[in-house]
Amino acid sequence: MTIKVSIIGATGYTGSELVRILYRHPEVELVALTTRSYIGMPMSEVYPHLFKYSHLTCEEADLAKIFDVSDVVFVALPHGHAMPVAHEAARSGKKLIDLGADFRFTDFQVYESWYKVEHKAKDLLPQAVYGLPEVNREKIKEAWLVANPGCYPTSAILALAPLLKQKLIDTGSIVVDSKSGVSGAGRGLSLGSHYCEVNENFKAYNVAAHRHTPEIEQILSRIVGEQITVTFTPHLLPVTRGILSTVYARLSSGAGAEQLRQLYREYYKDEFFVRVLPDGTLPQTKWVAGTNHCDIGLTVDARTGRVIVITAIDNVVKGASGQAVQNMNIICNLPEDTALAGPGLYP
Amino acid sequence: MTIKVSIIGATGYTGSELVRILYRHPEVELVALTTRSYIGMPMSEVYPHLFKYSHLTCEEADLAKIFDVSDVVFVALPHGHAMPVAHEAARSGKKLIDLGADFRFTDFQVYESWYKVEHKAKDLLPQAVYGLPEVNREKIKEAWLVANPGCYPTSAILALAPLLKQKLIDTGSIVVDSKSGVSGAGRGLSLGSHYCEVNENFKAYNVAAHRHTPEIEQILSRIVGEQITVTFTPHLLPVTRGILSTVYARLSSGAGAEQLRQLYREYYKDEFFVRVLPDGTLPQTKWVAGTNHCDIGLTVDARTGRVIVITAIDNVVKGASGQAVQNMNIICNLPEDTALAGPGLYP
Amino acid sequence: MTIKVSIIGATGYTGSELVRILYRHPEVELVALTTRSYIGMPMSEVYPHLFKYSHLTCEEADLAKIFDVSDVVFVALPHGHAMPVAHEAARSGKKLIDLGADFRFTDFQVYESWYKVEHKAKDLLPQAVYGLPEVNREKIKEAWLVANPGCYPTSAILALAPLLKQKLIDTGSIVVDSKSGVSGAGRGLSLGSHYCEVNENFKAYNVAAHRHTPEIEQILSRIVGEQITVTFTPHLLPVTRGILSTVYARLSSGAGAEQLRQLYREYYKDEFFVRVLPDGTLPQTKWVAGTNHCDIGLTVDARTGRVIVITAIDNVVKGASGQAVQNMNIICNLPEDTALAGPGLYP
Amino acid sequence: MTIKVSIIGATGYTGSELVRILYRHPEVELVALTTRSYIGMPMSEVYPHLFKYSHLTCEEADLAKIFDVSDVVFVALPHGHAMPVAHEAARSGKKLIDLGADFRFTDFQVYESWYKVEHKAKDLLPQAVYGLPEVNREKIKEAWLVANPGCYPTSAILALAPLLKQKLIDTGSIVVDSKSGVSGAGRGLSLGSHYCEVNENFKAYNVAAHRHTPEIEQILSRIVGEQITVTFTPHLLPVTRGILSTVYARLSSGAGAEQLRQLYREYYKDEFFVRVLPDGTLPQTKWVAGTNHCDIGLTVDARTGRVIVITAIDNVVKGASGQAVQNMNIICNLPEDTALAGPGLYP
Repeated sequence: MTIKVSIIGATGYTGSELVRILYRHPEVELVALTTRSYIGMPMSEVYPHLFKYSHLTCEEADLAKIFDVSDVVFVALPHGHAMPVAHEAARSGKKLIDLGADFRFTDFQVYESWYKVEHKAKDLLPQAVYGLPEVNREKIKEAWLVANPGCYPTSAILALAPLLKQKLIDTGSIVVDSKSGVSGAGRGLSLGSHYCEVNENFKAYNVAAHRHTPEIEQILSRIVGEQITVTFTPHLLPVTRGILSTVYARLSSGAGAEQLRQLYREYYKDEFFVRVLPDGTLPQTKWVAGTNHCDIGLTVDARTGRVIVITAIDNVVKGASGQAVQNMNIICNLPEDTALAGPGLYP
Repeated sequence: MTIKVSIIGATGYTGSELVRILYRHPEVELVALTTRSYIGMPMSEVYPHLFKYSHLTCEEADLAKIFDVSDVVFVALPHGHAMPVAHEAARSGKKLIDLGADFRFTDFQVYESWYKVEHKAKDLLPQAVYGLPEVNREKIKEAWLVANPGCYPTSAILALAPLLKQKLIDTGSIVVDSKSGVSGAGRGLSLGSHYCEVNENFKAYNVAAHRHTPEIEQILSRIVGEQITVTFTPHLLPVTRGILSTVYARLSSGAGAEQLRQLYREYYKDEFFVRVLPDGTLPQTKWVAGTNHCDIGLTVDARTGRVIVITAIDNVVKGASGQAVQNMNIICNLPEDTALAGPGLYP
Repeated sequence: MTIKVSIIGATGYTGSELVRILYRHPEVELVALTTRSYIGMPMSEVYPHLFKYSHLTCEEADLAKIFDVSDVVFVALPHGHAMPVAHEAARSGKKLIDLGADFRFTDFQVYESWYKVEHKAKDLLPQAVYGLPEVNREKIKEAWLVANPGCYPTSAILALAPLLKQKLIDTGSIVVDSKSGVSGAGRGLSLGSHYCEVNENFKAYNVAAHRHTPEIEQILSRIVGEQITVTFTPHLLPVTRGILSTVYARLSSGAGAEQLRQLYREYYKDEFFVRVLPDGTLPQTKWVAGTNHCDIGLTVDARTGRVIVITAIDNVVKGASGQAVQNMNIICNLPEDTALAGPGLYP
Repeated sequence: MTIKVSIIGATGYTGSELVRILYRHPEVELVALTTRSYIGMPMSEVYPHLFKYSHLTCEEADLAKIFDVSDVVFVALPHGHAMPVAHEAARSGKKLIDLGADFRFTDFQVYESWYKVEHKAKDLLPQAVYGLPEVNREKIKEAWLVANPGCYPTSAILALAPLLKQKLIDTGSIVVDSKSGVSGAGRGLSLGSHYCEVNENFKAYNVAAHRHTPEIEQILSRIVGEQITVTFTPHLLPVTRGILSTVYARLSSGAGAEQLRQLYREYYKDEFFVRVLPDGTLPQTKWVAGTNHCDIGLTVDARTGRVIVITAIDNVVKGASGQAVQNMNIICNLPEDTALAGPGLYP
C-alpha cells in the first residue's frame, strides 16, 4: 500500500519536519508540497539539509488539485487558514490532519475569543477529533479530520492525565510552568526570534494569556469530568528544540512519589512514545530531541503536599509533526510507530 | 580612604567576578587573592580576561596574615569552609563577607540538616547578618560578619517581600519556579557542567530538595511573621549567567495587576538596584547581565486568582559578587552603588 | 568640560552600545538620539537594559538641529546614509564620527564598485581620516571627520601591521580567515540572523566577496608601501559578540615565534588596548567581551614556514562603538581610555 | 544474515552514537558494550536518550569473550588502547574497526613522534586499512582491521582529493582552517569542555601542532604521489556537533569555480554521502547534523588566484561513528548506506 501525501504549507519548520520524518516512512509517497513564499523553488533549495532527499518543487496551493492526487493532506499553516482546506477535504472525501488550532475546540466561541478570528467552518467542528493518541486513540481511528494538538498542551496534558483520571489532586491547584525552544515560533521573522535577542537570554511571555491555555483546560476538563482552569506560563528557552513543562498540583491524597510513578507506568503501559522515567531520573529535553517521545518524571514535595510532574518533548516532533504522523498512522491503520521509532540525537 | 580587601577563594567564578567589580571601585585596594588550585600563578594567567587589570599572584590562604593586611575579607569558598575564617575575623576585629551558606541560618540545625555538615562556629551565628540590603539594610550597617544571600533566594525573596509584607497572598500557596545559568554551578568540573550535556538542553534538578529552600523560607517567614513553606524548583538554563524566577501565589485579596505593581514601586522606591518594570514588560535575564539589578515584573491571572511575579538577576552579580560589594559599601559607609552602577551588556 | 554628543541611528546595536559606553564617560552629555523605527519612544523602552540609565526619547533626525546642539555626532547608520550628515557637519563646523563605510576609502571608485552606490560626498573624502588609532593616531588628532573602521578590518590590520611594517612576510601569501558573532549583522530582521538558522550552526559567507576586503587591503598597502591583495573569508559564529581572525602568511625571514612576539610587544608597547599574549596563550573571544581590547597571539609553523597570527576583539566595542569613543577621546584631547578601560565579563 | 557486533568503550560519545546508528541497522545485533567507568550499569541509564532502545548492560572488557561472541568489534577508546584489542582480533579472525588513531599511520615512527606513545602492534600495521571509503574503498572491502579516520582529516581530505588528483593546485600552498564542535573532545571532564568556558566563546587550539596534521598529510601525499605538508589550524566552536573546514590553496591552473565544481561532481558522482552543493550555496554544519554526509562547496578568489573549498561534516557521524558503520557495511558486503541514509535534524 502506498499512501499519497501532500503538505499544505511545507516550507515552515513543521512542514520541513514532516518531509524529514516521512522520508523514512515505507508506505508514504509525498506528492505535493505547497508554499506561499517559495513558489517554484525545489524543497531541497529552501532546506538544503534535504538535498538528495526531496525531489519535489514547492508549488502554490491549488486545493482541488492537491486533494485529487492525495490520500492524506497535512496542513501546516497559521491558525485561521485551515478552514477552507477542511471544506475541500470534506468535499473530496480525503483525510486531513491540521497542525494548527482551527479544529481543536469543540466550542467555536472559545476559539474565537482566544484567537480573535471568526470560525468559518463551524459545521465541521463536530466531526473534528483531537489528535492526542494517548488520550483519544479510539476516536482518532475513525476520524477524517484530525486536529493535531498544540505543543504545550501535549506536554501539559500527558503530565496531568493520570492524576486527574484517578482524581488524586485538587483541581483548582494546577500550575503549568512551561519552557519552549525557539522553533515553536516558526520560521517567520520577528524580533522575538532574532538571534541576538534570544541567545544567552531567557524570559516568560504571554503570561496568563497564552492561547494554549483553553486547549489544555478543554482536554483536562474532559478527562476529569468537571470544568478546570489552570495557570499556564510559557517561557522562551535559548535552544532550538524542546519543551519542558514543570507541573504543580496539590495532592488530595497522601500518595507518595513511587506510588504515583507506578500509577503513571500503569496508565501509559501500552504507550510506546511515553517513557516514564525511573526514580531519581528527571526528564531533559535533549533526551527526546528529534524523537516522538514524551518523557515523564515526578516527585512529591512532602513538606508542602504538592506533586511536581515534569515532562519533556521535542516541540517539533511530539509537539507537532511527529504526532501528526502518529495520527496518520492511526487513521491509516498502520503500526503507530512507523517512521517514528528510534533514539534521538545525543549529545 | 582606601579599603584593603582580600579574597579567600579568588579563583572560582565568584572570586574572579569580585576582582572584575572591585577594579572599578575607587576606594578599594586588592591586597591578596588566595587559592587552592593555582598557588603561585598570576591571577591574570588563571583568568586572562584580567590581563592588564590584575597584578596579584594567587597564594595559599594564610588566614592570620590575610587579616593582618586587610580591612575587609571576602570568602568565596564552598560551604563548610568559612567557619575557621570567621573565627579568624573575630579575633582580628576585621570585617568578613561570606558568599557561602555557613552563616545564613539563624538556626544551626536547619543548616546541618540541609547541608549535611556540622556547624563549627555556632558561637558566631548570633552576630551574623543576612546580607540582602533591600530587606535588611539597617542591620547590615552595623555588621562585621555578613552572610551574603544565595542566588536563588535573592531572586525569590525580592519577588515576594512586598506581597508578604502587605499580607496579600495565601502563604500556603507559594510556588517558586526558578531557572539558572550554568555559572551558578561554579568552575569545578562535573558532568552536569560539561558543555555537551548542557548545551541545547534543559532540565530541573534537586526538585523539592534544593538547599536554598530553607533560606528562602527563613527570610520570608521573618518578613511575614509566620512560618512559611514554599515549593521551590530549580532548573538549569543553557546560558552562562542569569536567574529568572517565576513565582506563583494565590491572592487573598482581589488586587489587580496595576495596583500590585504600584505597591512594588512604592516598596522599592529607594532601591536603586531593583527595577520594577512597567505594565506589559516582563523581565529578561539578558537585560541584567553583568549588573547588580533585580528586575521585577508581574501580572495577575484573574481566571485563577493567582499573581505571577517574575524576577531576573545576574546570578554572579546580584546573586553573588555584586551583592557582596553592595554589602561592603554599606558596612564601609560608602555610597551603595559604588562600582556597581551602570547598564549591562546587551545584546 | 562637557562634550555634547548625539547619535544618529541610536536604536541599532552599535547605537545602543554607544549609549552604554558613554554612560560611564565623565565628560559627555548625551543630548539627542535619532531613529527611524522608534520615533517618540524612550530609549529605555527600545532597550530595557538601559532602564534607569537613559532618559532620552528617540526622535526623528533633524540634522540642522542635531548639529546645533552637539559638539560631536556619531553616525550609526547603514552605508550610504552618512554622506548628507557629513555635509551638515562640514557646514556646522562640528565633529563627526561615522561608524559606517562611507568615508573609509580614499578612492571613491573602490567604494562605489564594492558598495554598489554612488558616493555623494566625494569632496569630503580628502578630509576624512581612517580611525584606527593604533596605526593612524596622529592624523585622527586633527580630524573633524573620522571614518571608524570596520570590525573585520580592525581585527585583520592589527594582526598584520607589525609584520608588514618590518617586511617579514611574503605580501602575496596573506590569508585572513575570520569568524564573527551575529551582532555584526545588526538588529534588522533577516533569515540569516533568525535564531533557529544560526544556533548550533556555522558557515562561511560572502567568501572572496566581502566588502571589508578592500578596506583591509587599502590600509595594509599604506603600511607596507605597496599594493596588497588578501584572501579574506568571513564566517558566522553562533555567539552574540566577538571576532576571531586567524591570519596566515609565509615568512620571508626565518624569524621564530618568540622573536615575532617580541616584535609585536615592541610595536604595541604604548597601546593600552592591544594585549600581546604570552607564549602558549592564544586569544579567546570571551576574554575581550564587552571591552575595547584587541588580544593578539601568534605561533610559527616551522614545518611550512608560515606565521599564524590570531586576534580577538569584541565586534561591537573595538570593532565599532568602543573604537568610536576612543576616536572621540582622541579628537577631544581626552585620555584615550576614558570610559573604555576595565576588564570584560567572564565567564 | 545477522552480524553480531560489540563495542569496546561504548560509554563515550562515539560509543553511544554507534548504538544510536546501529539501532536502525536491520542486519546487526548488538551483543556487548564495554566500559571502564560504568561497569554493571544499563546503557540506557548511562545515556537515558536510549531508554527503550538499548537493553544491554555495560560490562568490563573481557577481550577473549567479546571476540568469541562477535563478528565485528568497534573500538571507541583513546589512542594507545586499541593495540591489544587488535592482537586479540587477529587471533580470533574477527573484524575490528578502530575509531582511534592507533592504526592510521603506515609509518609507526610518525605515530610515535606525534602521539608520544610506543606502538605495540607494529606487526599489524601492514594489514591495517585506512577507512575513508571515498578514497580507499577497494582496500577496505578486503580488510579485517580498519583504521577509521579522524574527524578533521575526513573533512580536509575530502576537500582536497579532487584538486590533488588532478594536480590543479600548488601543493606547497595548502592551509586548512577547521572549526569543530565540542563533542569532538569527548565526554571526559576538562576545563576546556566546561560549559562556561566554551559557551559564547571561540578560540584556536593546538595551532600548528595538532595530531591530525600528519594524518592529513599522509593521505594527501598518497593521493598526489609526492610528500605534502599543510598548515592546519583547529578551532573550538560553541556547538555540540559539526566540523567546517575552510581550505585554501593556490591554483596552478586558471580553472574557474564552476569548472572546479564540475570536477568535484564528477569525482564524487558515485558517492552517496558526499554532496557537492550548487553554485551560490556553501555548506553549513547544521545541514549535516546527525548524518553521514560531507557537504562540499567551493569558490575561486580570482583576485588572488586561490581556490577556497569548504566542507561540513558531523564530527560524531561522518567524522567517527557513522563512517565506522559505513566501513562495517563495506567489509560485510552490505549496501553502504544501510542505517546511514536519511536527512538530518534541521533546525
